[in-house]
Amino acid sequence: MNLILLLPEDLVAPQRALLTGRRLAHVRTVHRAQVGDDLTVGLLGGKMGRGRVLRLDDEALELKLMLDQAPPPKLPLTLLLALPRPKVINRVVAAAASLGAERIVLLNAWKVEKAYWASPKMKPENLHEQMILGLEQAKDTVLPELQLARLFRPFVEGELPRLLVGGTGLMAHPGTGGMARSSLAAPITLAIGPEGGWIDAEVQSLLSAGLQPIDLGPRILRTETALAALVGRLL
Amino acid sequence: MNLILLLPEDLVAPQRALLTGRRLAHVRTVHRAQVGDDLTVGLLGGKMGRGRVLRLDDEALELKLMLDQAPPPKLPLTLLLALPRPKVINRVVAAAASLGAERIVLLNAWKVEKAYWASPKMKPENLHEQMILGLEQAKDTVLPELQLARLFRPFVEGELPRLLVGGTGLMAHPGTGGMARSSLAAPITLAIGPEGGWIDAEVQSLLSAGLQPIDLGPRILRTETALAALVGRLL
Repeated sequence: MNLILLLPEDLVAPQRALLTGRRLAHVRTVHRAQVGDDLTVGLLGGKMGRGRVLRLDDEALELKLMLDQAPPPKLPLTLLLALPRPKVINRVVAAAASLGAERIVLLNAWKVEKAYWASPKMKPENLHEQMILGLEQAKDTVLPELQLARLFRPFVEGELPRLLVGGTGLMAHPGTGGMARSSLAAPITLAIGPEGGWIDAEVQSLLSAGLQPIDLGPRILRTETALAALVGRLL
Repeated sequence: MNLILLLPEDLVAPQRALLTGRRLAHVRTVHRAQVGDDLTVGLLGGKMGRGRVLRLDDEALELKLMLDQAPPPKLPLTLLLALPRPKVINRVVAAAASLGAERIVLLNAWKVEKAYWASPKMKPENLHEQMILGLEQAKDTVLPELQLARLFRPFVEGELPRLLVGGTGLMAHPGTGGMARSSLAAPITLAIGPEGGWIDAEVQSLLSAGLQPIDLGPRILRTETALAALVGRLL
């Protein structure tokens, strides 16, 4: 937690926040802060700055806020991710948020098992929490917009072409393309397939919607690794 | 497991392998292979190709091997990683191997807790296993060379300058540099700090050894995310 993200309900006065639970525990056990210390804080969706510790005990952390910095600008990046396995969904969503994507779409695909959508990991409160963890890691305050697209064709044929207006669309698929030479100076939509890849019909649909194939070379990477490597290329 | 990695001791005849344990279980439960199917296989340190299933039951998987492809070339990349927390060491090492680094050095740093070095995760057999998992993910057969550098100064002052001969050295450190414009057309040594970053004295030592500072922008990324994003930039 490189930044403590404050929610509107944490504010007990305009410049004062009272925290309990996970953030209190983290500040006590990891930061090992003391009264008078300054911590890096930010208001969800708002400014970042410092919070001076006024009180820190078993029950609460009270901070006096000095919020004077804008959060880093979001990347003009939409990540279109085939829904990962439940075991890795938390890491993928947190990583996507930490990288600064302004929008994350979790998309169905042939090789996404139906059961993944019913996983407890997919509950809105869990997905929200993972994005919060990503922002706290990255020192950011602005949540990505999260969309669940449980039907591949309606999304890819109906919504994706509109997302691509004024920007570039890229489809990561091993063996299909060259290296991305695009950059996030302009909006990019980046599609990353499931374990096992997109099936041919999906590749055709994504290409028809306007995506260009790219790859990262001969190695097959895990979703979270491919995601970061591709975003790193586009920065 | 996108490739089943065979060890010399798996070979019961020049073109025949007999597998048990983890790989047998994986082929039965995940690949759901049947006699006559062809699986993607590779010999550790050697060629890749197909293995035809001759036998598959509770006790063993027997494969007839047709190994005729070279593995993908290693990247001329040395990753110099401050030793991560035990909780993430497996993921970091597997990711580094999957990305194709030819050498991984796990290095001490001020913010690396002593206890990390004593973790069971640091046993040679575990680190070896994680690299194997990375190769199986990536479809590669060649292990990175792994070095443990438990003393920062002797490594950075004594060994690092020699590693940099004929190549470029980069030090990832938030806020210090610009984006990397190097590429792995020539050898690169890439240093990535611990959670909390390198301390000033370490930064000075790494710069003195010949590393150039780079960063990925204002966001602070987890080691595994930063690692992939940086390697993605250099590909």
